[in-house]
Amino acid sequence: MTPTNLPPSTVHRPPSVVALAGGVGGAKLADGLARLLPPENLTIIVNTGDDFVHWGLNISPDLDTVCYTLAGLANAETGWGRKDESWNVFENVKNLGGEDWFRMGDRDLATHLERTRRLKTGEPLSAITRDFCLRWGIRPTVLPMTDDPVPTIVDTIEMGELAFQEYFVHQRCQPTVKGFRFDGVERAQPAPGVVEAIRSADVIVFCPSNPWVSIDPILTVIRALTPNPSPAGRGGQDSPPPQGEGTGVRAAVAVSPIIGGETVKGPAAKMFRELGIVPSSLAVARHYGREILTGFVLDSVDAEWSGEICQLGIQPFSTDTLMKTPEDRLRLAKDVLHFVESLL
Amino acid sequence: MTPTNLPPSTVHRPPSVVALAGGVGGAKLADGLARLLPPENLTIIVNTGDDFVHWGLNISPDLDTVCYTLAGLANAETGWGRKDESWNVFENVKNLGGEDWFRMGDRDLATHLERTRRLKTGEPLSAITRDFCLRWGIRPTVLPMTDDPVPTIVDTIEMGELAFQEYFVHQRCQPTVKGFRFDGVERAQPAPGVVEAIRSADVIVFCPSNPWVSIDPILTVIRALTPNPSPAGRGGQDSPPPQGEGTGVRAAVAVSPIIGGETVKGPAAKMFRELGIVPSSLAVARHYGREILTGFVLDSVDAEWSGEICQLGIQPFSTDTLMKTPEDRLRLAKDVLHFVESLL
Repeated sequence: MTPTNLPPSTVHRPPSVVALAGGVGGAKLADGLARLLPPENLTIIVNTGDDFVHWGLNISPDLDTVCYTLAGLANAETGWGRKDESWNVFENVKNLGGEDWFRMGDRDLATHLERTRRLKTGEPLSAITRDFCLRWGIRPTVLPMTDDPVPTIVDTIEMGELAFQEYFVHQRCQPTVKGFRFDGVERAQPAPGVVEAIRSADVIVFCPSNPWVSIDPILTVIRALTPNPSPAGRGGQDSPPPQGEGTGVRAAVAVSPIIGGETVKGPAAKMFRELGIVPSSLAVARHYGREILTGFVLDSVDAEWSGEICQLGIQPFSTDTLMKTPEDRLRLAKDVLHFVESLL
Repeated sequence: MTPTNLPPSTVHRPPSVVALAGGVGGAKLADGLARLLPPENLTIIVNTGDDFVHWGLNISPDLDTVCYTLAGLANAETGWGRKDESWNVFENVKNLGGEDWFRMGDRDLATHLERTRRLKTGEPLSAITRDFCLRWGIRPTVLPMTDDPVPTIVDTIEMGELAFQEYFVHQRCQPTVKGFRFDGVERAQPAPGVVEAIRSADVIVFCPSNPWVSIDPILTVIRALTPNPSPAGRGGQDSPPPQGEGTGVRAAVAVSPIIGGETVKGPAAKMFRELGIVPSSLAVARHYGREILTGFVLDSVDAEWSGEICQLGIQPFSTDTLMKTPEDRLRLAKDVLHFVESLL
């Protein structure tokens, strides 16, 4: 089967897709899906566990990466921030002795300033995001996982608990990870539209984002999975799990963020290792498990794991998953949708 | 007497000067004084009545204009903001539907961001200003008039009471002025160093700033003058007036912001007219009165008023007061200091 060679028009009656996304890899696949699906058939639910306040501003790095990518405004080289960016505010804040461990470009800063101003008026993040998307010409629905603060806390051996950006940017993922906590998740509500999107979706696609700190926060907010999965903790009472009774979801497919035992970007592989798990596509499939997943997309270089993934009760599908160019995003999105259709 | 032609070295034993300054004109004379006097002989007390919060940031327009001018960072053409400025944040905030009636450049914005961040930690404006001056290489002492909020409220016929920047920038000074109020001034304390600087000064120089909304707020905070001057209201009990018992001040000299019946920049002349007073150098001298002033510097084109100013009990001195170039600033500062020496 070579779905890559099939023209997009062969995607008949396109499925209704909910994509769960974190940062760069997630944004890229979401962009591929956005170019294939009618906008009303795609809702992207984005991790906000990495949101934080810096320079007094409310910053939503994953949400911005997804939106900038979909709007064609993203910096393709760094994977974060805006293209054609200038750094005049940052350089001058630095000259005044301000905090300079988190770089923010001038155009990017406008997003944080206007979001912060509107949040202070009491407007929820989801409404602000909807309006920003409209102004940026983004047609699929982009939803933060929740309007409530659910900061991801990384527990480390050397430094104890660290707020996510403190771990990720300030400490450059150096400390050894012991575990994760999604602070306040027990009080958080999914953002308006999240539950509805899941209920009416044919399929949920887990983009190739970090399972521990990008996808798990979303799953935890929608109460499908506890942060440290155990059979008892799976499948909450209040909200629909990705697959399950009471939802229209007929498939849930994850795309592995781990290729050949390593991550393209970010600390996912390092986190697996530090938690005592050999990082691999199989480890990612096991992390979610068959209670959550119907299918699993792994890279061709990892095709050797297909048998073991199948034995988990999850349908494997291997293809080229590395997204270096915009064409790669489209190609992978096509492959994922073809695979999904085979599962429905 | 042609003091302009005397070299700076003839200023022997330089006087200790406190300059009161508002925006552009005040900043220019302060800059001239800063180039003539040893830094320890100059303290500039700046109006903060026009401070306001915009985009969630604490903005001190007069303080910034004075500091940028002294640091050589000011935009000479606009009279506000920074030179070599870019507008990437502003344009992007505008694209997101944010408020765009108050323009802020990227470099300028860094000042507001870092000031706001530090104010939120509880640091007073005067301490933040001291540190910024150090980083910008400004050697004279620059003090905000107070660390407390004392917003200038402009009462207008058409729109009632307006916050100063709402009147000044958003409404472009169009509404007709009825009066002014310095909100909270009765609870405000002069910033640390203000009273001490005045007590140890030989002379107070009122820079050519708007009497109603730049100098009066400062005088009101130091309790030398009530906003609507009346004999009963002059000379408070708590703090030293510019001239008076208990202070070392031997002279107080104002430089007229009105030349030939008009202001170089800003609404001072319009304000005089709307309050029923013909705008002129004489009107400015009368506004302060001899209870406050020893001497008064007016432009050569207004020399005709010298006799009447003298009759007010205030020593007049006429010279070229227009400051178009950096050399003009130096020349006027020299003239003012020579005049001051003749009064001491």
